[in-house]
Amino acid sequence: MSSSPNLYFDAASTAPLHPVARQALAAALDEGWGDPARLHRSGRQARMLLDAARETVAELFGARPDEVSFTSSGTQAVHLGMLGALRGRRRTGRHLVHSAVEHSSVLHTAELFAADGGELTAVGVDRAGLVSPAGFAAAVRPDTALAVLQSANHEVGTVQPVAQTAALLGEVPLLVDAAQSAGRLPVPPGWSLLAASAHKWGGPAGVGVLAVRKGVRFASVLPADERESGRVPGYVNVPAIVAAAASLRAVRAEAAAENARLHALVERIRTAVPQLVPQVEVVGDPVHRLPHLVTFSCLYVDGEVLLTELDRAGIAVSSGSSCTSSTLTPSHVLAAMGVLTEGNVRVSLPTGTTAEQVERFLAVLPGLVARVREPLGLDLPAPAAAVQPTAAAVPPGGAEPHAPASDALVLDALGKRCPLPVIELAKRFGEVEPGRLVVVLADDEAARLDIPAWCEMRGQAYEGEAPAADYGADRGFAYLVRRLS
Amino acid sequence: MSSSPNLYFDAASTAPLHPVARQALAAALDEGWGDPARLHRSGRQARMLLDAARETVAELFGARPDEVSFTSSGTQAVHLGMLGALRGRRRTGRHLVHSAVEHSSVLHTAELFAADGGELTAVGVDRAGLVSPAGFAAAVRPDTALAVLQSANHEVGTVQPVAQTAALLGEVPLLVDAAQSAGRLPVPPGWSLLAASAHKWGGPAGVGVLAVRKGVRFASVLPADERESGRVPGYVNVPAIVAAAASLRAVRAEAAAENARLHALVERIRTAVPQLVPQVEVVGDPVHRLPHLVTFSCLYVDGEVLLTELDRAGIAVSSGSSCTSSTLTPSHVLAAMGVLTEGNVRVSLPTGTTAEQVERFLAVLPGLVARVREPLGLDLPAPAAAVQPTAAAVPPGGAEPHAPASDALVLDALGKRCPLPVIELAKRFGEVEPGRLVVVLADDEAARLDIPAWCEMRGQAYEGEAPAADYGADRGFAYLVRRLS
Repeated sequence: MSSSPNLYFDAASTAPLHPVARQALAAALDEGWGDPARLHRSGRQARMLLDAARETVAELFGARPDEVSFTSSGTQAVHLGMLGALRGRRRTGRHLVHSAVEHSSVLHTAELFAADGGELTAVGVDRAGLVSPAGFAAAVRPDTALAVLQSANHEVGTVQPVAQTAALLGEVPLLVDAAQSAGRLPVPPGWSLLAASAHKWGGPAGVGVLAVRKGVRFASVLPADERESGRVPGYVNVPAIVAAAASLRAVRAEAAAENARLHALVERIRTAVPQLVPQVEVVGDPVHRLPHLVTFSCLYVDGEVLLTELDRAGIAVSSGSSCTSSTLTPSHVLAAMGVLTEGNVRVSLPTGTTAEQVERFLAVLPGLVARVREPLGLDLPAPAAAVQPTAAAVPPGGAEPHAPASDALVLDALGKRCPLPVIELAKRFGEVEPGRLVVVLADDEAARLDIPAWCEMRGQAYEGEAPAADYGADRGFAYLVRRLS
Repeated sequence: MSSSPNLYFDAASTAPLHPVARQALAAALDEGWGDPARLHRSGRQARMLLDAARETVAELFGARPDEVSFTSSGTQAVHLGMLGALRGRRRTGRHLVHSAVEHSSVLHTAELFAADGGELTAVGVDRAGLVSPAGFAAAVRPDTALAVLQSANHEVGTVQPVAQTAALLGEVPLLVDAAQSAGRLPVPPGWSLLAASAHKWGGPAGVGVLAVRKGVRFASVLPADERESGRVPGYVNVPAIVAAAASLRAVRAEAAAENARLHALVERIRTAVPQLVPQVEVVGDPVHRLPHLVTFSCLYVDGEVLLTELDRAGIAVSSGSSCTSSTLTPSHVLAAMGVLTEGNVRVSLPTGTTAEQVERFLAVLPGLVARVREPLGLDLPAPAAAVQPTAAAVPPGGAEPHAPASDALVLDALGKRCPLPVIELAKRFGEVEPGRLVVVLADDEAARLDIPAWCEMRGQAYEGEAPAADYGADRGFAYLVRRLS
């Protein structure tokens, strides 16, 4: 609630309704409530408002009005856009290229396509979450029907090189998922299909945008319907669309000034957190980034416990840690980047966030992290020692296989969930001499990512995975860590 | 606009927003704007409101809360419900049964299913638009995966015998499309899947309901998503759902009194129109009908011209005439009933309609119809002579084939659109003696329905279709009418 002293720093999940959206919604409920498909006066009035909203969105996204259809969410725009393009180009082939850090709506559509016989190539990213344009383009084949790339990552804020990538794709259409940047940043050129979501820019829930460039082959996979150029069936939500368009115009007009302000506030968080909290990794590209979003991970911290502590302190943030997901797997984005997933916090600032609010957050955070860590009794280095990671992502599957080491310290963390395996490692690591091996047996998904990340932050050597059976366990994996210092 | 003296009689397209919906929407925009999937306070608040709305809708529809999912429209509820049930039961078979008068969302889903190899049986209706429970059940086969039946027809208001039909279907799940009755009437028992649309009961646009009984096999056809029990992907529009649930409760509470009032007003229209307007057919079941909806067709009238005249007079209605559809085909509902499609007017009264408003409509209508007919110079019988149709629907394909009659009066209406072929027939019919044949050559879709309907209304004999070539034409059909009196 706007009157409370709470800090809402989860704009990337949903932004508070922009005042212009609220005003436009109220007006459109009065003037645009009719069925735009009808010939009578209230139908015509609704249709006029719908046409005007379409023109606004088209203009601001660099599209023609007849290229723009409204959906009921960004997810629906991605689903229908991808499936429609894949079906429209099925004679070209059944190969789909996407980055490994796309939104789940893209990955779930890719899974459905693969289950139906399609072939996928997921293009990896570097440790900052960036796609390489040349690497992405190299994945394209003669039978590639569609490529999908986000404008900016929803979890770590890294802005992708969309225009450079699009320029290398030749005839292959590129669907750009602009959900996280639309409104805040201009839509990057080069898209053939574009998806966006109004509630992320301060519009109401219930409105997404799917734009399809004229000439791009598209065949809807849903039952026929005359609404929205045959691309999105169902009754059109005119009042919400009017509010979405009005707020998009308002947000774009404010963006230059607001982005500069929020960019500085995020820079302050990026700099301050590692100074204030020991053993923290700020993730995501420090330069190519969204103005309002920053993500960091805290060693030895249970993400859900930290989120709960922050919530009790009146601060709303989000997390990609496995303990906060219903499937108990860590964020696929953090995994693809090869960064620490435990104690993960995503801070995304809504329009109007003040420096005072950011300072309030920074004042509260260190004490909360310390309180969560306190029961562990770990001896942590001072914050200044926080390591800025530089190495490339850990190769999947780890280093070369080893013969089982007979003199290793074996730590049994089987059945323990994130962050317990890493805590176990940190607590008992001092028991071995430099040069000796520590083996962590674990079956939690997050351990595969967090043990290498721990090694990197602590300057120790991660030597890869071995079969758990080599160390007498009947499940999970053995993670090999050599003490260097 | 509510302040204008206009009459909005198109509630079946979309109902004006109920005051309770508007109030609840404003409150939920303040309190329920968060992402209900998030763990923090604004997320929990949104989730609590969403849960409460789900409980309300479940209670009022006779479902369990976990059986209810929210969609973005009634059309989406029908699409996802049908496709999910058909996919969930594909091992049982690939046969779908539906009535011939279902909403286009059902027919379009059936077409998609048929294009994918499914088999369809469309069950016919009588001249009042009623399905026969035994006839519907007789269409079910061992490989029937799903049956679909509307609670009430959206064009003519006929209430279908859903409970009696459901009782005859055995193990075959029945999807009930309750879009036209939900809110006004209780949901009929016997459904396995249920679809409804909030903006039809006075809720906001952007909310549909899909309920799936526990135990009914269901496999979503869209990409996976954790929202709405995995049945409806995409961000959930909590404020609109809260408003939909609140207005459903309000509308149900008012329904008994309001239905009685509107039922009487519709009865007044059903009785008065044939007394005031010559050559009118009131269609739809006079007993088993929605309280607020009545449809009639006027001979020798272009539906679009009449709608435009009514709109100029400030009266908003809808029409199933071919000239008002983008495809220039008459309503499939009127076609299945075998009734007149020309000059079709659907009047659907919103909550709160007064007797004075209905009288205003009745005072204006006869003059407008007369004005539309005036240029034709037809000699019409007095209104009291309007025939109440009693015969069964015209058999498809007409009566037995004839040898071409050499002494017939042949009228060339090729290339002429509804209502011109019937007008041509009426104008020149007097030129032949009783006992002689008139042949109308026409290629307009509506002629197939409207010429038999004209015969019935005028007490003449419709003798079926013959190839146009029999009468020297290279396209269209020859419709044979014998003058009886």
